Amino acid sequence: MTPRRPVITLTTDFGSSDAYVAAIKGVILGINPEAIIVDISHDVGPQQVAEAAFILSTAWPYFPPGTIHVVVVDPGVGTARRALLLASESAFFIAPDNGVLSYIVEHVCSPAAGASTAAPRRLCPKLRAFVLTQPRYWRSPVSHTFHGRDIFAPVAAHLSLGVAPEEMGEAVDSVLAFAVPPPHREAGVVVGHIVHIDHFGNLITNITEADIAAGVDSVEVAGRSIAGVGQTYAQRRGLVALIGSSGHLEIAVRDGSAARLLKSKVGDTLKLRLSS
Amino acid sequence: MTPRRPVITLTTDFGSSDAYVAAIKGVILGINPEAIIVDISHDVGPQQVAEAAFILSTAWPYFPPGTIHVVVVDPGVGTARRALLLASESAFFIAPDNGVLSYIVEHVCSPAAGASTAAPRRLCPKLRAFVLTQPRYWRSPVSHTFHGRDIFAPVAAHLSLGVAPEEMGEAVDSVLAFAVPPPHREAGVVVGHIVHIDHFGNLITNITEADIAAGVDSVEVAGRSIAGVGQTYAQRRGLVALIGSSGHLEIAVRDGSAARLLKSKVGDTLKLRLSS
Amino acid sequence: MTPRRPVITLTTDFGSSDAYVAAIKGVILGINPEAIIVDISHDVGPQQVAEAAFILSTAWPYFPPGTIHVVVVDPGVGTARRALLLASESAFFIAPDNGVLSYIVEHVCSPAAGASTAAPRRLCPKLRAFVLTQPRYWRSPVSHTFHGRDIFAPVAAHLSLGVAPEEMGEAVDSVLAFAVPPPHREAGVVVGHIVHIDHFGNLITNITEADIAAGVDSVEVAGRSIAGVGQTYAQRRGLVALIGSSGHLEIAVRDGSAARLLKSKVGDTLKLRLSS
Repeated sequence: MTPRRPVITLTTDFGSSDAYVAAIKGVILGINPEAIIVDISHDVGPQQVAEAAFILSTAWPYFPPGTIHVVVVDPGVGTARRALLLASESAFFIAPDNGVLSYIVEHVCSPAAGASTAAPRRLCPKLRAFVLTQPRYWRSPVSHTFHGRDIFAPVAAHLSLGVAPEEMGEAVDSVLAFAVPPPHREAGVVVGHIVHIDHFGNLITNITEADIAAGVDSVEVAGRSIAGVGQTYAQRRGLVALIGSSGHLEIAVRDGSAARLLKSKVGDTLKLRLSS
Repeated sequence: MTPRRPVITLTTDFGSSDAYVAAIKGVILGINPEAIIVDISHDVGPQQVAEAAFILSTAWPYFPPGTIHVVVVDPGVGTARRALLLASESAFFIAPDNGVLSYIVEHVCSPAAGASTAAPRRLCPKLRAFVLTQPRYWRSPVSHTFHGRDIFAPVAAHLSLGVAPEEMGEAVDSVLAFAVPPPHREAGVVVGHIVHIDHFGNLITNITEADIAAGVDSVEVAGRSIAGVGQTYAQRRGLVALIGSSGHLEIAVRDGSAARLLKSKVGDTLKLRLSS
Repeated sequence: MTPRRPVITLTTDFGSSDAYVAAIKGVILGINPEAIIVDISHDVGPQQVAEAAFILSTAWPYFPPGTIHVVVVDPGVGTARRALLLASESAFFIAPDNGVLSYIVEHVCSPAAGASTAAPRRLCPKLRAFVLTQPRYWRSPVSHTFHGRDIFAPVAAHLSLGVAPEEMGEAVDSVLAFAVPPPHREAGVVVGHIVHIDHFGNLITNITEADIAAGVDSVEVAGRSIAGVGQTYAQRRGLVALIGSSGHLEIAVRDGSAARLLKSKVGDTLKLRLSS
């Protein structure tokens, strides 16, 4: 599964003003100078595990098979929280066991009902999980506050050199995951909520194309009503609802910010009236 | 013209908090793992085509021959606007046909009078243009809202593998371009304007070294007068006018922001009195 | 010492909205397409030499031997200030001679008393310094305002190809460095100060693990008292003092910003009462 030039991606809440990300890259390149390192985002809000989980979920499907995704949004670093390596058929994930891989579990296995806070979830056979317990693949000494540099980075680099996942630690059959709540459906209506607000101020929801295959009459959000679901940002002035590039319904405004216009925030609900 | 390890650059208005840029990189690396991907900027103002055009114009001359420059500042994505591949002797450009390549056309062909909004411009023989119409080089399905990921990125990657530009679509002989207005000259005076304000607050103008070869007595900007044109930021306290690294006259202030001091914005004019 | 695929890092105050960083990368890749370029940070405050010096000091130890570190925080560009290549046994540094390499000199040679502004410091035998004086390794012409692109970048690229440091210019035996002030110690008390505030609002100090080996009763900072020194950010609510990933004492607050809570800034002092 390991490609000739392995790709390692990084998703963190480290921002861009410090050298934390660079230290991780230095450690990786010291172990595998052939690794191709790609930043997914370092602007996840500090300690915002759910936000990191969403961002990773919109990126990883576009990477080549064998890509290793490292996530360092880790408020519990240095405590008893476990460090994980998750292996699917097409990708690896290295992250703290704090729910940040929830979308991966739902996508590869199946959606599940459950709490919106992280709770143990049993994995399906398509995913294997290992708790990182083998210090011979770590830097030494290990800082109490920066496992990204001292554990995750070297584990990713050794993995990219072909070390087997099972060498990295002990197999476990469940990981912490939060449930990604699906939209609520009742007669002729779908009620969803905003899961992410992007750089443009577009409101990305938990409603997918399949949820509205019947057609939509109107979208009600923040006291406004939008007629139907369109296809492009530019097709009309003012608010537009459309299926965005991640397959989710989003609310946008041409040449402007829907979030600013509607004063919306993550978690706010919206209601779709389906065509009858 | 394709070098052994081709360089692909990215210029977008995607910011750094989402995974949009990463998705583009994942797609490219999935097709050509040997591509070297370089970010020019992802902090172009949302939908600011002219700003993206300027930023690209200050970067592309420094890249090796054969570099492929991808620009995704694309307010009309999904509408009838065309997607372009422009080929010069030394570089390729993949972008929406919305004027974002105007400086390239002026630089490679010649400056031209014309509207400050994008209008069709006939290309000179040094530039070949193709409208991207060959879906076999695209991802499938193509999102209506993210051609950067689904069309531009895979076309760039296939081009970097040696696919000929003419395979990508139909040759056309004009593209949309806006005119880059030159400074106005009259007896002893040059009137220009601010085309870009950089991260330091330096005011970069449309006045070049050639425009002021005769020597400058004074620069009048925002009600202030600066004596002569200097060479370095540090040579005196307060405001300084100098020829910056892109060959354009710029106004700076030592250890400070000229934009903040002068409350200047892009489009503001300034007047130079030439030496007599 | 040059590895097969050399790493070149960049630390600048250029921000991310312009093409300055990209121009540097284009120049490097034009000379050595095999160079691996890694960003340390481009968000150093404009002209903040001491901040750049600190950030570089926290990154370079994690890079592979032979890495070339380029720093372009250069308020004196184009003036008589010298351009330097510093070579240690394990790394190269290319930077203006303005004190930005002070931590490197202290780390590789030894801490020294001295002024907190940059003054000439004689190097120990573990460091060799060269003033860049050989234009055959530069771009031509050289801009008066962008030596990063026209001198530092091509020198780094040629160095990465194996050109010897002594080919780049004249050996000198001293460079400008400021003293990194150690904490002040008196009976039972250590007084230090904040040297950096990171993206999380953590207050990083000049106090190291060795300074407090005796154990700490309490940390007094901004009118607050923190009992003892902990190990992790998450171990308790409220303020915590701990040894951070760079080996320095830092003040943090769980899921929040200590800098905002305490209204702290770089240079503020704090006092530790040692265990008796």
